[in-house]
Amino acid sequence: MGRGLDRTHLQKHSSCNKQTTTIGAMSEDKLEQYRQRFRSELDRVVDFWLKYSLDKQHGGYFTCIGKDGKVYDELKYVWLQGRQVWMYCRLYRTMERFRRPEILEAAKAGGAFLQRFARVPSSGSPGKCAFCLTRDGRAVKVQRTIFSECFYIMAMDELARVTGDQGMQSDAEKMMDQLVHWVRVDPSGLGRPQMPGDPPVNSMAVPMMLLCLVNQLSEGRPATAQKYSEVGDWSVQQILQHVQRDGTAILENVSPEGKELPGCSGRLQNPGHALEAGWFLLQYAQERSDKQLQRTAVDKFMEVPFLSGWDKEHGGLFYFLDVDGYCPTQLEWNMKLWWPHCEALIAYLMAYTHSSESALLGRFSQVYDYTFSHFSDPEHGEWFGYLSQDGSVALDFKGGPFKGFFHVPRCLYMCERLLDSLLERRQD
Amino acid sequence: MGRGLDRTHLQKHSSCNKQTTTIGAMSEDKLEQYRQRFRSELDRVVDFWLKYSLDKQHGGYFTCIGKDGKVYDELKYVWLQGRQVWMYCRLYRTMERFRRPEILEAAKAGGAFLQRFARVPSSGSPGKCAFCLTRDGRAVKVQRTIFSECFYIMAMDELARVTGDQGMQSDAEKMMDQLVHWVRVDPSGLGRPQMPGDPPVNSMAVPMMLLCLVNQLSEGRPATAQKYSEVGDWSVQQILQHVQRDGTAILENVSPEGKELPGCSGRLQNPGHALEAGWFLLQYAQERSDKQLQRTAVDKFMEVPFLSGWDKEHGGLFYFLDVDGYCPTQLEWNMKLWWPHCEALIAYLMAYTHSSESALLGRFSQVYDYTFSHFSDPEHGEWFGYLSQDGSVALDFKGGPFKGFFHVPRCLYMCERLLDSLLERRQD
Repeated sequence: MGRGLDRTHLQKHSSCNKQTTTIGAMSEDKLEQYRQRFRSELDRVVDFWLKYSLDKQHGGYFTCIGKDGKVYDELKYVWLQGRQVWMYCRLYRTMERFRRPEILEAAKAGGAFLQRFARVPSSGSPGKCAFCLTRDGRAVKVQRTIFSECFYIMAMDELARVTGDQGMQSDAEKMMDQLVHWVRVDPSGLGRPQMPGDPPVNSMAVPMMLLCLVNQLSEGRPATAQKYSEVGDWSVQQILQHVQRDGTAILENVSPEGKELPGCSGRLQNPGHALEAGWFLLQYAQERSDKQLQRTAVDKFMEVPFLSGWDKEHGGLFYFLDVDGYCPTQLEWNMKLWWPHCEALIAYLMAYTHSSESALLGRFSQVYDYTFSHFSDPEHGEWFGYLSQDGSVALDFKGGPFKGFFHVPRCLYMCERLLDSLLERRQD
Repeated sequence: MGRGLDRTHLQKHSSCNKQTTTIGAMSEDKLEQYRQRFRSELDRVVDFWLKYSLDKQHGGYFTCIGKDGKVYDELKYVWLQGRQVWMYCRLYRTMERFRRPEILEAAKAGGAFLQRFARVPSSGSPGKCAFCLTRDGRAVKVQRTIFSECFYIMAMDELARVTGDQGMQSDAEKMMDQLVHWVRVDPSGLGRPQMPGDPPVNSMAVPMMLLCLVNQLSEGRPATAQKYSEVGDWSVQQILQHVQRDGTAILENVSPEGKELPGCSGRLQNPGHALEAGWFLLQYAQERSDKQLQRTAVDKFMEVPFLSGWDKEHGGLFYFLDVDGYCPTQLEWNMKLWWPHCEALIAYLMAYTHSSESALLGRFSQVYDYTFSHFSDPEHGEWFGYLSQDGSVALDFKGGPFKGFFHVPRCLYMCERLLDSLLERRQD
């Protein structure tokens, strides 16, 4: 393990988990148990959304779904529509047991809904997508950010891979080029007026999403990979600027030159985002055999947010923290959200798969134990998304404006595949 | 008590509070104890903000203030700047012990900062105010709503009353006329594009604020009262549209015709807002001796939100609820915020003062006991603003982007005055 990882701390935690984990000598049985759990949980989650979320009348997906599957609001959030298309296609394309007609049909129906309704030509910018649509596809709200467009690109690219539709792939790339223009050249098309007291900021989410899209568009396409390689490198550099205070903190917002910003915004930490960026970086570094970047991804983006973000009293990862220990102004700062735990599971298992550092498997086990005992709902399936600091369920729906068919199944899918490769390697 | 008030329910609650309250026969001693507590708490809160919030260098007020008074962010939120000016002036103008030079100076310094920096001429609309400014007054963010402007008007009007500055009064009225135009004639100057899936909504906050401003501008000025009387009546009608489901629910968002809206937004309840609207209505009704409106204010806007909004397990008022019992999608729905409790104290004490219905004093006592035992900080002064459902402090600062020198001192001030009039009457 690298210099950034505190072994004492890890050992202390591992001893708390003795019943489930023996760090350094985790048995193949244990890994197989994990794999079985991820596999059965993924099946259950896929079933849940196929059963409750498809809008057979208007196309697209309901995503506001109560604990027992009941739709409690018909609005269609474009982030979640795009992510659901992506997830269905990825499962269909890469996992044999999901190569089923109803999954392909669900993906196509979502893609058609997006292509028909997501773009808002009247917004003044040709590529701008709505944030939220009515059930029948009328725009409700447009965000002055890039994220609806990001998930539109992910959906179109993955759908193009499944259907072979060249038009969709070209649609995805055109949107990507527009997006890179907004981020790197001129943001005015996003519609947010530049205020004199609000200079440009490097927000973690932006280069993270660009990197994710570069990884997505480049997979198995050398020419496209070449086209976006400079954007990828730039995104990595922008992400690395968030390592601050001599490497002891990952800050969510920094200046475009990589300096710390004043006030709450500058001191904000979002451990889940850092962990997600961590595995995006690790994936990118592995494809390029960039050992130094691999090391940074693990030591800085996986270890640092755990040390600051894990709640030593109740377990689980905080949503937001202030690096100087002030109370964050976000009302939900101390809640435990499902998605940072999903990202942590992927990050630690991916890092372990490639380094075989047992301490990383210890982290994975610790997050796994918390996650599966708190978020997963044994009664109705799928996961709760929002817990109070003490781990009790605070919001009991399975889908909402920001929780859809994405983080949970992506985590289950990625972890199952990582465990496949780990177990395969052990058998070799 | 009117037909809408459930006596059994009230008696049940009152019996829980037997140690502190004897409904129907509250002693003058007890009322005097309340008055002493409000008075000393108000003195403490005024001292806290005078000590920590004044920016002697750039003018205006710091409002991001930690539990012990330390400024943790220098941004200046225009809502809170305007409210603080208003509060200082109101105290200076109407309470003998606050007619102190440093309070007048603090008010003037805030007013000058607002006049110099709050308006954003480049926003395309001449009257538009920023939402947030840097310490030295550069605009950071502009909201596409009317609320910064509302608090600008309150500040200018009250400051004009204290200083006799006619220009300020005229400034306030001009902004008011612009605001009424945005709300009733053409909202396009606010800068929010109208989306086809997002038809106009009657949101409680808008007519509530208009009514509050009509009350403010009209006080002691018959000609101005005449000018805005139609706006006042219209605002009252718009507020009354929120009484839904045969009078059993106050809904936060309805259609402009007063119909229930679909989905989460249509089902949303905000008990604190309903209670605040309740005392705005009661005040308006009393000035016009409108008995029917007085009855509605109490039975619908004070009793109904209590029955739905009071947490029977832990005490305190929930922040948001869904009228059909679904889980709200707001992450903070089950938190206990300071301001709904402030509004409840004013509402119940005002209603009791005018009707002498002992059940209302019971409500007041119940909210008082929760509020003073949970929000007030005996160590450093002022109140915490944000509690978890169980009543523990979740965010420990005294001021933040939405908590300034307003709801707490306004509540303490209003309640002290109401208790003055109650005790005076008993002595007669």
